[in-house]
Amino acid sequence: MFDSGVGGLTVVAALRELLPAEDIFYIGDTARVPYGGKSRSTIERYSQELSAELLAEGAKMIVVACNTASALAVPTLIEELDVPVIGVIVPGAKAAVKATRNKKVAVIGTRATIHSRAYERAIRELSPRIKVTGKACPLFVPLIEEGWAEHNVALAVIDRYLKPIIESGVDTMVLGCTHYPLLAETIRSYVGPGIKLVNSARNTALEVQKLLARKNLAAPLTQRGRLRVALTDQSDHFLQVAKRALNLRIGKVEVRKIKPLAL
Amino acid sequence: MFDSGVGGLTVVAALRELLPAEDIFYIGDTARVPYGGKSRSTIERYSQELSAELLAEGAKMIVVACNTASALAVPTLIEELDVPVIGVIVPGAKAAVKATRNKKVAVIGTRATIHSRAYERAIRELSPRIKVTGKACPLFVPLIEEGWAEHNVALAVIDRYLKPIIESGVDTMVLGCTHYPLLAETIRSYVGPGIKLVNSARNTALEVQKLLARKNLAAPLTQRGRLRVALTDQSDHFLQVAKRALNLRIGKVEVRKIKPLAL
Repeated sequence: MFDSGVGGLTVVAALRELLPAEDIFYIGDTARVPYGGKSRSTIERYSQELSAELLAEGAKMIVVACNTASALAVPTLIEELDVPVIGVIVPGAKAAVKATRNKKVAVIGTRATIHSRAYERAIRELSPRIKVTGKACPLFVPLIEEGWAEHNVALAVIDRYLKPIIESGVDTMVLGCTHYPLLAETIRSYVGPGIKLVNSARNTALEVQKLLARKNLAAPLTQRGRLRVALTDQSDHFLQVAKRALNLRIGKVEVRKIKPLAL
Repeated sequence: MFDSGVGGLTVVAALRELLPAEDIFYIGDTARVPYGGKSRSTIERYSQELSAELLAEGAKMIVVACNTASALAVPTLIEELDVPVIGVIVPGAKAAVKATRNKKVAVIGTRATIHSRAYERAIRELSPRIKVTGKACPLFVPLIEEGWAEHNVALAVIDRYLKPIIESGVDTMVLGCTHYPLLAETIRSYVGPGIKLVNSARNTALEVQKLLARKNLAAPLTQRGRLRVALTDQSDHFLQVAKRALNLRIGKVEVRKIKPLAL
């Protein structure tokens, strides 16, 4: 699994719960985080480099835990790589389609994810009559990383971004960024019980389970899977926030420089 | 000149005004921005790569416009390179020493800049009895990049970060990040007229002028200097914000992949 940083640990937590026998090697690109404001070609290149790293580790499948990389690079990775590749967009879209009653869905995420319209396309492919409203919320990630998810500044930022969406009458909101589950409680208190919040983590884990079964790739259930975590930069303030919030047991974190693609 | 992104254009603007004859080649590392939460070794490596790029362009001097890179990488660059290297820390420190009356100075910046204590060391070296209080303000950059510098969210964030500093009685505050001049008006309205705000841009330009003269490197005053700007990633929402705010004439922006150091 790879992510632009450590937000994807929300997906790791869901996978560990559902598939405890699987070995997971997670690499977070903290040396180049965040991806959310960068261009498609740069995000594709970074994703190819990280995938090469995972394949060198013997990966039987690649999970792209980052919404931005899922939105912009997964189609290319699927085309280029010999192992199955799963992003978080399609699982999130499926969950949204299942959750909505009035067929009005909001998607929130980084600038790159929202501008790509990847969620919109995935949702419309499943159910063409659903109306999808996207909203980029670039301040949510730094707010979470600052540990201010429950502060009144967070509420002011949420109000500024989400008020027009709420007023447009959506009944479902996709948290289209792996960081956002850590802000979910505050968002929930703002939007109230009338709007269902959907996150991809659990649904991505379910998709991984199905795909492993279909391809006969599942690990023997007798084994206890290992979790290894590598980051491309050693310092990550947010890693501590995430570990606490997700109650994940992570051993020593490896620091790994990744090999750039030939220019 | 290099910067982690486009914030360093505040230094370009000051240099253009003071030294219109000099050619400036500016490279902003937007493919890996921001540097402020990353580790010393990563910031050093990126700075070495960008410096190599500038030397290949025939640079007679390197200006590090990024506070984080100035704080963490300039000592290494000075040691390793054959051309003069100027960062923004020492010029900012000099300005602060000149500005303070009560010898209580605050420095605000990214997490990496503040934790490095580079401003504190530079100020104490000039005037050992000055008391320096550092405060990391990681949300200021995303706020500015979102274009919310004058929004009430900005005031709430400023209050949260700066209240304890104001109460501690400083009379001078160093804006220790190249983005911050774009938030200066809002900060000024919050802190009031009793606190002087210092930014490095103008002072860095003065240092460059002195050093060019001392080393006999100044361009002939009859020439009209060229400004060229390159970024390592093509998309930069903030470039538009900065160009407008600084009234800079920038032609076509080149996108350039930089050569990584051998791993």
